[in-house]
Amino acid sequence: MPHIVALRSSARRIVPTVVCPCSVMVARLHTSPTSPKAQSEADAALPLGPFGRMLGGLNSLKSTLLKIPPIAAVGVGGSAPIPFTGRANSWSQAVREAQSLVVEYDQDQKIIDPIKLVGRDLRDMRDNIATLLGSGHPLLNTVSKYYFSAEGKNIRPLLVLLAAQATSIAPKQYLVSFSDEYEIIDTPISPMLQNTTTRTAHHDALYTPSVTKQGCMILPTQRRLAEIVEMIHTASLLHDDVIDASEARRGLPSANVNFGNKMAILAGDFMLARASVSLARLRNAEVIELLATTIANLVEGEFMQLKNTQKGKNGEAPRMTTFEYYMEKSYMKTASLIAKSCRASAVLGGNTKEVTELAYTYGRNLGLAFQLVDDMLDFTLSSTQFGKPTGADLTLGLATAPVLYAWEEFPELGPLIERKFSQPGDVEKVARALVYQSNGLKQTRALAESHCQAAIDAAMQFPPSDARSALIQLTEKMVTRQK
Amino acid sequence: MPHIVALRSSARRIVPTVVCPCSVMVARLHTSPTSPKAQSEADAALPLGPFGRMLGGLNSLKSTLLKIPPIAAVGVGGSAPIPFTGRANSWSQAVREAQSLVVEYDQDQKIIDPIKLVGRDLRDMRDNIATLLGSGHPLLNTVSKYYFSAEGKNIRPLLVLLAAQATSIAPKQYLVSFSDEYEIIDTPISPMLQNTTTRTAHHDALYTPSVTKQGCMILPTQRRLAEIVEMIHTASLLHDDVIDASEARRGLPSANVNFGNKMAILAGDFMLARASVSLARLRNAEVIELLATTIANLVEGEFMQLKNTQKGKNGEAPRMTTFEYYMEKSYMKTASLIAKSCRASAVLGGNTKEVTELAYTYGRNLGLAFQLVDDMLDFTLSSTQFGKPTGADLTLGLATAPVLYAWEEFPELGPLIERKFSQPGDVEKVARALVYQSNGLKQTRALAESHCQAAIDAAMQFPPSDARSALIQLTEKMVTRQK
Repeated sequence: MPHIVALRSSARRIVPTVVCPCSVMVARLHTSPTSPKAQSEADAALPLGPFGRMLGGLNSLKSTLLKIPPIAAVGVGGSAPIPFTGRANSWSQAVREAQSLVVEYDQDQKIIDPIKLVGRDLRDMRDNIATLLGSGHPLLNTVSKYYFSAEGKNIRPLLVLLAAQATSIAPKQYLVSFSDEYEIIDTPISPMLQNTTTRTAHHDALYTPSVTKQGCMILPTQRRLAEIVEMIHTASLLHDDVIDASEARRGLPSANVNFGNKMAILAGDFMLARASVSLARLRNAEVIELLATTIANLVEGEFMQLKNTQKGKNGEAPRMTTFEYYMEKSYMKTASLIAKSCRASAVLGGNTKEVTELAYTYGRNLGLAFQLVDDMLDFTLSSTQFGKPTGADLTLGLATAPVLYAWEEFPELGPLIERKFSQPGDVEKVARALVYQSNGLKQTRALAESHCQAAIDAAMQFPPSDARSALIQLTEKMVTRQK
Repeated sequence: MPHIVALRSSARRIVPTVVCPCSVMVARLHTSPTSPKAQSEADAALPLGPFGRMLGGLNSLKSTLLKIPPIAAVGVGGSAPIPFTGRANSWSQAVREAQSLVVEYDQDQKIIDPIKLVGRDLRDMRDNIATLLGSGHPLLNTVSKYYFSAEGKNIRPLLVLLAAQATSIAPKQYLVSFSDEYEIIDTPISPMLQNTTTRTAHHDALYTPSVTKQGCMILPTQRRLAEIVEMIHTASLLHDDVIDASEARRGLPSANVNFGNKMAILAGDFMLARASVSLARLRNAEVIELLATTIANLVEGEFMQLKNTQKGKNGEAPRMTTFEYYMEKSYMKTASLIAKSCRASAVLGGNTKEVTELAYTYGRNLGLAFQLVDDMLDFTLSSTQFGKPTGADLTLGLATAPVLYAWEEFPELGPLIERKFSQPGDVEKVARALVYQSNGLKQTRALAESHCQAAIDAAMQFPPSDARSALIQLTEKMVTRQK
């Protein structure tokens, strides 16, 4: 019978730390940090065990290759992590360096094992449904891999794990100890389906938290949280693609196109249900509520995106301007999950309210910047680079930041936004042309940069560590990302 | 800012009762119960306050009307509750009598206020999506009312509330007190959407638990649980109708037909997300895990139904017989939610493990019987009575109990089951004809009755009360229900 490890009533066993009077806490929060770069240079030479050394050798080659401009520009998402230097020259490199801090070395250098997310039974389920619906399509494995994040960058779980490390040495409300706080609480969800969250003997060894030289660590519950966050994200992608009738995702046909709506709905529900059960088993009320709320936010965001305009009721003025509405939608669809999962990671670590608030502020601002950059890339990249048709969001009738800024300069954009770019030529001839003539892209980038700065300001209040440096480097490189 | 009430850390504040050593507990569990009927006769004369008396007057008229055979036979689901007598002569009357025990009198005698389930914002959302998708259909309100349970019998929340009352006087692990255990923990889920779980001043008054003369009561958390259970059920209906491409539900067009798949998926996700947040706010780890598991079970059940046969892999023998598979599917799709929500109700009441297990056993057996009767009604009712086309499940290729029993007598049914009744005439000419010639319906009824008996055996171990009598009466009348 498969079992996993989970935290037993950690919230109840409060072990006060000796270093936590308010004055010390505030002092630690405001400690002037040493240079993240100086630190990470020292760390780069650290022995990482036999696997680490092999990886190191391989990666020094890859690292060289990465510096060749075309590769650096296109990015190498999904590739193996590379040792942390703090001197990444691209978003992709920043991601891969950050991954090296939190990777589980047994899993082909993945930070999330897709099998842990979906379980063998979902692979069976996929095969079964494919047979059932008569869609034994050759792209099946490729697409499901995309959805189940085997090929993705796993940004969300990556941030959860980095936040775990960065806050592990920040002020605590209580200390979570590893020796006796975990007990086996998993039972299979049903006789028919094996539990997703299988614990193996091998897994047990991994579940001893590894401590970096700065004393940073990741708890078992925080690693579980990272998996849950990826499940929620994946479920949301599956349903959104059905609702938006998306045809492609990152250049591949979307699940709804390949397997039909039934498969996509059912797979999304399944992921969400599994995520909810795993979440319940964390047995932390605050974390459960935070993550449950992100699910609600994702749905609300999708709804706001469908609706896309805020109209006043009964002749009243609308509650929000169009730009506020757009930012609110971006929070719901993108920033909420990142912000609340970073906070949840700090909560699981037993951190003080001040620290969990910093984690939230970091995630919220990074998430908003992420969406702003995404909306910029819609205009600046060719569809080959970006993996979706350029102007795709405009085709969906979405008024994003670059268009809304351009509207201030070119009032003639108003009627197009109002009619959701529904007339022939609205997208290419008018909207895109006017955006390029305007300062819309520049202003969008400036707004993204201001949110990045706010994220960095928050992260800088954590004690110095490689994890903090990685959070900051990710933020710095995010604005220049190419995919 | 809207707020609700929820239980604060009740699981932590354990107040041991003085009546709970094992011997006393076992003695109470096995107390020979007085006749449920004798008790409820006494209760029927109870004054119920001004609203109760008005209702009583109205209901004595309705009760007379009910006894007129055609009305009694067709049933009056969705009508007002009638005072509990314990002598119901139909399923519908048993339901309405049970409702009178748990109704909130302010809400037009509904046990669940649909507005509390969906919130004003979902009504807005519905209107908005309808506008968006261009489906301002006249049946909109009727159908949404069906889905949001305004017209339904609310069987699931009814059972949760009756289980709450029946177990409130059963042995406890700890006592939940009402005076100081509740605090305001709700914050709006998002700035855009008001919280579903709005607490009004009026609501506060309702949240004082009413105590029956037997000392039975319903806690605020248990009433909230009832709402959550209905939300999960509704979400599941919405998605299943999309997945099964259902065209009708209880004689009305289904949401997917009326509003399209997008609306149905989004509304289902929304209900599920709201349910998850409300669930998290109950702050009871065991209850959260129980209900999260029911969501997973519903998805697995829907998957089993789509798949419908258990085939061995790589030439191995299948793990289950077809009948076992059918019963497992029935557990997943129907019994799990009822069983686990009855157990969760007892858990919220602070009951002992033995009592929560009895609640689960009651719900599991009632749920299985409910599905068996549903599958019988497919054959015995005209489509007008049943609200869905007769043989609808066979059209979907489902091999239900009556067919599987008939198969034992008529081996020629095997190939039809194998090919999922896919050839012309399979349903009407062969399957239905052979089921009528066989003992399939009789055997299905006998199996349903045996599960009903098991449910009654479990309920009889609760201390005597009207609520217990209502649980038993519902079970007795369930086999004879006509819709």
